[in-house]
Amino acid sequence: MSQPIDFYFDFSSPYGYLASETIDDLAARHGRQVSWRPILLGAVFRQTGGVPLTMVPLKGEYSLRDFSRSARFLNLPYIHPPTFPLNTIQAARSFYCLHDQSDEMARAFAHSIYRAFFRDGRDVSDIDIVLELAVRHGADRAALAAALDGPALKERLKAECDEAIGKGVFGSPYVIVDGEPFFGVDRLPQIERWLASGGF
Amino acid sequence: MSQPIDFYFDFSSPYGYLASETIDDLAARHGRQVSWRPILLGAVFRQTGGVPLTMVPLKGEYSLRDFSRSARFLNLPYIHPPTFPLNTIQAARSFYCLHDQSDEMARAFAHSIYRAFFRDGRDVSDIDIVLELAVRHGADRAALAAALDGPALKERLKAECDEAIGKGVFGSPYVIVDGEPFFGVDRLPQIERWLASGGF
Repeated sequence: MSQPIDFYFDFSSPYGYLASETIDDLAARHGRQVSWRPILLGAVFRQTGGVPLTMVPLKGEYSLRDFSRSARFLNLPYIHPPTFPLNTIQAARSFYCLHDQSDEMARAFAHSIYRAFFRDGRDVSDIDIVLELAVRHGADRAALAAALDGPALKERLKAECDEAIGKGVFGSPYVIVDGEPFFGVDRLPQIERWLASGGF
Repeated sequence: MSQPIDFYFDFSSPYGYLASETIDDLAARHGRQVSWRPILLGAVFRQTGGVPLTMVPLKGEYSLRDFSRSARFLNLPYIHPPTFPLNTIQAARSFYCLHDQSDEMARAFAHSIYRAFFRDGRDVSDIDIVLELAVRHGADRAALAAALDGPALKERLKAECDEAIGKGVFGSPYVIVDGEPFFGVDRLPQIERWLASGGF
């Protein structure tokens, strides 16, 4: 059995959202599963000196246009959120809490967070919205709220971010297939060919 | 008659080289011509705070792998140059000097510079190599050397860079189709669809 492919993303990343809508199907076409790994780009940027795309002169304006156009290119709905970027620490911590109960539940929750943010413009930095979406997929609200308050989940997300940086992750989405790294939703065609041919 | 599409690039840009090998054919499939516009990313980066990809922590290592893999993906030869990046000011100035005589000659010269750098590992910052490649395409060596020494060509390249920045150009390759900007060789599929449908 092949290893799953690793899918690193930040819940505040437009290109991460676009990749999240297609990565599972893409992998499944080649008999592979996907290990979803939310991280915090803020933690990564402290290592790399990166800044959010939309804050870079010239590139920022372009990016806003490219987010929407890339969504149309992939036939995916996209409405740029009124507040952007957002702090996604509660969403990412919640993901790992749910993941330890059920990967399926965590993945459904991740889709809901992304869609709430990039389709419905909801403030997914708000812990009440995060809890609402988690409950929708079967989470126990009180248990999740308690876990978000405790040290274990904070450590868990920190460890995930450190591990990602250790693997070279510097942005979102970042996909690793059998050790080969691919950055950006625009690398999906390369990932597809890599999976089809075992490298090229 | 439709306007040509604008193709901005730096002679030291691997993704610019990859785009240069396909942009004319892509445009021609849709009855369009391409206006080639070499610029200096150094001038752009002074405005945007950008740095060469290969110097960014984590991203640098990734980029080296991605240059070669993207070339293989596009079925183009690529050997990462032993000295990288290079100062491409003489090559860019020479392009505009040749361009004023013949666009065809300038374009053939541009291909030669890119291929000398990204296939043969030659030092295209060296004025003698630049002159050799220009002469190969019919340039008058003494006239070009004299022009490279004078103020007009320096001003010309500076004006081209300023104009590019004024249009929002922040990297290489950067293509503008009827006012719509596309950054990166990975946007070629979007450019193709844009040309085919007049937007999407």
